[in-house]
Amino acid sequence: MNVDLVVEGEEEIGSANLSNFLKENRERLKCDVVLVSDTGMIAPRTPTISYGLRGVVGLELKVTGPKIDLHSGIYGGAVANPLAAMARLLASLHDRDGRVAIPGFYDEVEPLQDWEREMWRKLPVDGDATVLNESRAPELFGEKGFSTLERIWARPTAEINGMGGGYQGKGTKTVLPSYAMAKLTFRLVPNQKGDAIVDLAKKHLQKNLPLGVTLEMISGHSGPWYMTDPNNQFGKAAQRALQTTFSKEVALIREGGSIPIVSDFRQILGAETLLMGLALPDCRAHSPNENFPLENLDAGIRMNQAVLQELAAA
Amino acid sequence: MNVDLVVEGEEEIGSANLSNFLKENRERLKCDVVLVSDTGMIAPRTPTISYGLRGVVGLELKVTGPKIDLHSGIYGGAVANPLAAMARLLASLHDRDGRVAIPGFYDEVEPLQDWEREMWRKLPVDGDATVLNESRAPELFGEKGFSTLERIWARPTAEINGMGGGYQGKGTKTVLPSYAMAKLTFRLVPNQKGDAIVDLAKKHLQKNLPLGVTLEMISGHSGPWYMTDPNNQFGKAAQRALQTTFSKEVALIREGGSIPIVSDFRQILGAETLLMGLALPDCRAHSPNENFPLENLDAGIRMNQAVLQELAAA
Repeated sequence: MNVDLVVEGEEEIGSANLSNFLKENRERLKCDVVLVSDTGMIAPRTPTISYGLRGVVGLELKVTGPKIDLHSGIYGGAVANPLAAMARLLASLHDRDGRVAIPGFYDEVEPLQDWEREMWRKLPVDGDATVLNESRAPELFGEKGFSTLERIWARPTAEINGMGGGYQGKGTKTVLPSYAMAKLTFRLVPNQKGDAIVDLAKKHLQKNLPLGVTLEMISGHSGPWYMTDPNNQFGKAAQRALQTTFSKEVALIREGGSIPIVSDFRQILGAETLLMGLALPDCRAHSPNENFPLENLDAGIRMNQAVLQELAAA
Repeated sequence: MNVDLVVEGEEEIGSANLSNFLKENRERLKCDVVLVSDTGMIAPRTPTISYGLRGVVGLELKVTGPKIDLHSGIYGGAVANPLAAMARLLASLHDRDGRVAIPGFYDEVEPLQDWEREMWRKLPVDGDATVLNESRAPELFGEKGFSTLERIWARPTAEINGMGGGYQGKGTKTVLPSYAMAKLTFRLVPNQKGDAIVDLAKKHLQKNLPLGVTLEMISGHSGPWYMTDPNNQFGKAAQRALQTTFSKEVALIREGGSIPIVSDFRQILGAETLLMGLALPDCRAHSPNENFPLENLDAGIRMNQAVLQELAAA
């Protein structure tokens, strides 16, 4: 069999060039299947295939009141405070239980299949304990009716990634600030569409805008969700390769993160992607002390040998 | 008559030393009345005495979720987002119409007297137009049942002076941040007490804290409101002096800002303070392009000559 290696370093900034590279080299890169190792294992020495990823779409908000920062004594009470307005606006995104409150947000969500729920329940991992331990949050919190893993892998979110305005330094400045900003991203699941979700969000936010301020909204980068069949011809081959490498039953999962380029592999190259990653739950992706264990470097070599053999035989 | 001049440069950082200086020099500084020119005129060439000031008290909030910033794809949906929690918490401070929603917040508020409302209605100034023009806010916004000037001069507020958390730079970072902060100040009116208001606020915020996060609250600096009788012996003298200086009827107003030291003059020196300032509505206090007109420098000299004569005769 022939192997093409594609190496890119722009995934974290949205792979702005890889998509064009694929289009320009469509014929040269034609293939049966794509293998990507940018996902994780559910636990050490537990082989894992991710057959689904959430999508993501961004939306930036700016709420403006007075044209300059005002003295909060001289004007406070007579004009709206953009920070209070932004807080009220952002509070309208969720209900008290953490469910997204944007009308229509869940309309296109494909319900979790029974076989998935069943399979995930049997995984040799305690999702609650893992997330509590890795995040060190005071407690778990999320949409009712779903387990922790289901919430991360198969449910959409509206997340505030940043917000700010006014005086954030030491001490006090009694300003009634001119504006507030917030950065949102929505994680998407089948069959939500980024454009449609952003439209719903914009409509909801505009409708819930408090009096006395104006709202500016700018759509950000987006990437679609991804789902593939882990039990197709190549998925089965990958499962056999992982079984050989780790001598342990393969976990079939989805992941909460997004790898937008895998949709381009499908659309431009017509190939499905096998997501066989080796990051551990405590890898601290995107955080201080990000790490990768040496034993998984070795396992990765053996996994790739095995997967080439199995795919060649498939 | 004898005149003592007290000059201090720490008013904007809470006059940390002036209070002690007054105590240490109580006998030397003993006086009949104090004159302070740190207030404003309601319009150009319109003599103004401020007989009331709002007080102020600060409260800083920190909402913490996970112990580190998390990847919002890998954890989003399973742990609470401190920014969303802070937004919900801050949104609980007011109702939709801008009235403070902290139970008991208005309990000690002295209702506006009929003579004040009547007097303010007759002032030769359009409060709505002035505030709209100076703030350049899209529209006015505030507690129902009160005019713009009443809202600023005689009603208490809960103002967010700053809030922030997560990623606020250019572009996107898909973090689920560890914490959010906010800085609040409450403007106080007779007969609210700073300590009691902070206690009510803390109780309300703790009760409204969303699930999945912890809340830390630190009380900030405070200064009491001030009210004096503009028609007492010295107030009448000041009114005559202003009438002489500007040849125009004197406006008797309150102000929305705070000058905490005037309460110390009362308590330590046993003297009331006449607030006769010359700043104009467009002076942009604490903002870029702060200004003071030269004609008011001249008027200030004449006003002080006249007030010394009138007080000596009083």
